Parts: sequence; C-alpha cells; structure tokens
Amino acid sequence: MNVEGRWRRTIERDGDGVVVLDQALLPFEVRWMRLRTLADVARAIRDMHVRGAPLIGAAAAWGVALALREGHSLDHACEVLAATRPTAVNLRWALERMRAASDHEAAAQQICDDDVAACQAIGKAGLALLRDGCNVLTHCNAGWLATVDWGTALAPIYAAHEAGMRVHVWVDETRPRNQGLLTAWELAQHGVPHTVIADNAGGHLMQHGKVDLCIVGTDRTRGNGDVANKIGTYLKALAARDNNVPFYVAVPASSIDRSDAPFEIEERSADEVRTVGGTIDGKPARVRITEASVANPAFDVTPARLVTGYITETGVVDRP
Amino acid sequence: MNVEGRWRRTIERDGDGVVVLDQALLPFEVRWMRLRTLADVARAIRDMHVRGAPLIGAAAAWGVALALREGHSLDHACEVLAATRPTAVNLRWALERMRAASDHEAAAQQICDDDVAACQAIGKAGLALLRDGCNVLTHCNAGWLATVDWGTALAPIYAAHEAGMRVHVWVDETRPRNQGLLTAWELAQHGVPHTVIADNAGGHLMQHGKVDLCIVGTDRTRGNGDVANKIGTYLKALAARDNNVPFYVAVPASSIDRSDAPFEIEERSADEVRTVGGTIDGKPARVRITEASVANPAFDVTPARLVTGYITETGVVDRP
Repeated sequence: MNVEGRWRRTIERDGDGVVVLDQALLPFEVRWMRLRTLADVARAIRDMHVRGAPLIGAAAAWGVALALREGHSLDHACEVLAATRPTAVNLRWALERMRAASDHEAAAQQICDDDVAACQAIGKAGLALLRDGCNVLTHCNAGWLATVDWGTALAPIYAAHEAGMRVHVWVDETRPRNQGLLTAWELAQHGVPHTVIADNAGGHLMQHGKVDLCIVGTDRTRGNGDVANKIGTYLKALAARDNNVPFYVAVPASSIDRSDAPFEIEERSADEVRTVGGTIDGKPARVRITEASVANPAFDVTPARLVTGYITETGVVDRP
Repeated sequence: MNVEGRWRRTIERDGDGVVVLDQALLPFEVRWMRLRTLADVARAIRDMHVRGAPLIGAAAAWGVALALREGHSLDHACEVLAATRPTAVNLRWALERMRAASDHEAAAQQICDDDVAACQAIGKAGLALLRDGCNVLTHCNAGWLATVDWGTALAPIYAAHEAGMRVHVWVDETRPRNQGLLTAWELAQHGVPHTVIADNAGGHLMQHGKVDLCIVGTDRTRGNGDVANKIGTYLKALAARDNNVPFYVAVPASSIDRSDAPFEIEERSADEVRTVGGTIDGKPARVRITEASVANPAFDVTPARLVTGYITETGVVDRP
C-alpha cells in the first residue's frame, strides 16, 4: 500500500536481508529497518518493530531463511522465533511451513505472496458487507501494516475505497500501545476518512446509531469461533450485540487454530501502560503517566456467540 | 483525606477566597490554587482544575458567595457558573440551593459539609457490599478528589480500609483525561492496594473471575435509574452483566435528576484525545499522539437494566 505516495510491502527482500517498516516508530517517524540475522528478526518481532499476526508469520519465515544462511539449524531457528510472541498462531503456522520446505528462500517469499493474496480475497469477500456512506468501527491495527499488504480487517475498507465507495472508519486508540494510531496513519496514507476515538467511546457511538458495523482482526481464532484479539475487542463485541450492530472478524486461514490448545494470553511489560509515546515539538518523546502497579494483559477472547460472521478468503461464514 | 500525610478537604475557605487542589496538575504535581472571584471559579470548573460532580457543585456554591462579595448579581453568578459544564446535575442543584439562601457564605459552607456527610453515609451503606480480600473495579475518579471529602464510589472502599478490611482496586486509566491516575494517586495516599489497567482490560479480568464487583460514580442519574457517567462506563457495565459481576453506582441525592430532561452529552476538546500528559525526567510534559480527526464524547449513559444497585446516603437500593 502507499507509504508516502509509493506502493510498498511491509516486508521486502533486499540485499543480504529483508527491509521492514519500523512500526515501533510509526506514526511519528517513517523509517525502514534492515534485518540480516535470526537475532535481528527475533528482536524485531519481540519488541514489536514488526507486529500484526500475519506479518509476524511472514517475518518469522524470513527469519528461518536468514538463520539457515547464517549456519543455524532449522530447529534452533524455529525455537528462537516461536518464543518471541506466545499468542500469535500465524507464527507457529509459518514455522511449520518453513520446516516442511526444501527451498527456504522460495518458501518465505511464497508465504508473503500467499498473505497478500489472502488479504485481497478477504477484502473482496468483506466488500459485500459495506454500503456507500457506512461507518465501520475497528479496534487495534489489522490493516496492511499488520500484514504484508492490504490488511485483514481493513482489506474490505480498502477494497471499497478503491471501488469509489465512501466509507468512514471509527478508529479505537487501542491503549496501551495505541495501535489505532497506526490504523489512522495507514488510512490517511490512502485518503480513507477516519476519526480516532478513545477506547471508551465506541459503546456510546453504537448507542447513538453512529456505527453500522464493526470489523476487527484476530491473532488466533479457534475452530469453535472464539476470537483472541487485542485487549478490548471483547468490550466492543458486547456493545455491538447490545445495539444490534453486526460484529465481524476478518480471519485468514493462517490465523485459525484447529487445535484445542488453550489461549495463552500474553502479559506484556508494565511500561506499555506506564508510558505513552508521541511527539513534543515534532520530535518523538515518551511520557510516564503513572508509577502505580499495573497489569497489562495483551489480548482478550471474544466468544463466538458475539460474532456475526467471519470474513475469510473464501467468503463470509458463520464458523471459521 | 490524606494529602502528603495531612488530612485536607479538596475545597477549603481561606482568607479572601477558597483554596482548591489543582487537579489539572495531579498526579504529577500537588499544588493548591486560590480562587478569589467568580471568574476564577468559573475558569477552574471549565478547565477542570476542579472536577468531579459533587465537588463541582461545592465549588459553584463558593463561586456564588464570592461573586456576591464582588458585587455581581445572583442571577449573573448563576448564569456564568451554570454554563461551565453542561452534564453535571450537581452544579444546577447547588446553584438552586444558593438562589434560595439568605446567608450565602453559610450556605456554601453547608453544601460542603452536607457533601462530606453524604459521602460518609454512602461509604457506610456500600461497606456491606465488600468482603475481606475482594477486588473492586472502578472507572474514572469518583473518590474524595471528586467530592469535598471521602468520595462516592471510593467511599465504601475507604470505609472498608479504615475498618481493617483488605480491598484491592482495579483502576481504569480512563482515557482521554486519565482520571484513573487521580484514583491511583488518592488510593496510594491512603495505602489502599490498587492496580492501574488500560480501559480495554476490564472485560478480560471479569471473564477470568478477577473482579468481584464494580463501583462507579455518576454525573447525573435519572429517576428511572439510567446513569450518565464518564465515557466507557457503559462498556464495563456490559462486561459485568455478561460475567455476572455486580455493578453498583454510588449516587448522592444531589446527582439524581428527577426531571425528564434528556442527557446532554458534552463533546470536549479534540486535544484531550490528541495529547497525553505525564512526566519526562520527573517534569510535567505532554505529548501529541495524533494529528488525525478525533471525536471526544465525555460521557455515556448506562441503562438501568445493567445496574445491580445504587449506593445512596440511605442505603443500597434498586432504584435511585
């Protein structure tokens, strides 16, 4: 998608490694970072320079390919990468594909290309849910920044925008890490109208008929339809149900977990809650907002009963 | 309550005016500000140096008393003060009492003393809902900082704490203005255990049995039981209902609106969403987090059907 007017992917093969858009600096600074080694990729995923379930999978795939060039074993590479983010099922899915591959460079590239194709298919399937002039609420960032291109939850919106349909997006700020600001940034790069709101505001907007539907992404969705996604998703699903607002989850096959493994909810660093990043006089800065004890569960689980439908590569379905 | 180890009220008569704790600086700086004139009081309320529905009423009462000493008419004083915050019913309630008074200094003092007595009574009534070792979730700040003393939603918690009962409080950050940080600060001043969480986290905690009950305050509660309170309250009430967690609203008589007037929801400044205050190297600082369009509704309405009970001066009741 567009980055400063030029069409890019979030991860691209380049020279002796891959280049990725550094999402820890966005939206305050646009900087591409080069990852050359297994350690580079693992750190980029763990510290969320690279984020978003599908993109984590793609980055991990390249991490394996780069690790093998360094002389690491396949087992070691997979072990290091699997430990970076416990919740993302795409990570494990990508590593399984890489284990089965013979040409690992080609396999990593294929995972990226498949992700783009999956997101485009999700966009096409979800487009049928949108109407000219509609208002969509989304939580976190499941846009093209979270994938290799196009996004999951935002793919139908981009598809609508490209088709000339007017769509306005309510963007949840998504504390503590404020990934909603990434959503606002990428929508702005494409000229899609949007309004940022505090995470607290969505219920009120739904009570007043200002939201036509919700679309969110997912880090892991069970075969039974339960959806692990960014903390706070469950609250929006409850409000949607209470106000008869359809609630959709965009879910590529790579985010579906057919196992019965319990959701492992990542408890992330207290500093994510205690500090907020932004700018002062245009320069990146971070304020501390509290010294209190904090808890920081990164995801919650929205039960299937609250989900209207799942937008997949093959269409909108009742069960993933 | 305790401010740096000394028992204070949030508003005290002093010299030629009143002194109030400047809540626009808290929790990053403890500073008392002196208000001498009608204009001082109106600005302090509008710019939220003084905040919290009951405290706004008390401050407005003093605003009338100071205005009359300046030579303003009673009508003018009431008109200026009524315009400062549209949602707070206590403001109108206090101004009505002041209109009916003969000795306006004594009346303002009486409104303050009555508020303290009401909060203590709410604390006593709500104490029966708590158990040793329980976990209470609260949203925004309805503690003693929002009143003259003791608080509304937090009064039962202080009553429990004084009685030697162990209570832990989950404190919603409460974007966009982060009044939860005021709650954390005042709980810390009293040694009440607490944990700050992102507004997104409460539903997940309730799903996992980590919240025994919710207690929130209110800016205006209808006779039918509908509760206007800080934006986001409704989302927590939905989560409480979905997880069979009791949801209580602490409501002094002064916050009850017996009229059928529609709730007027204040849309506040975009900068409240676009900027976040904190500290850098211990010094107060404010970062800009987005340049996007924002919406900032300050309150939402929780329908009576989601409220387990109302904690009033006269006990816990089904309808206010």
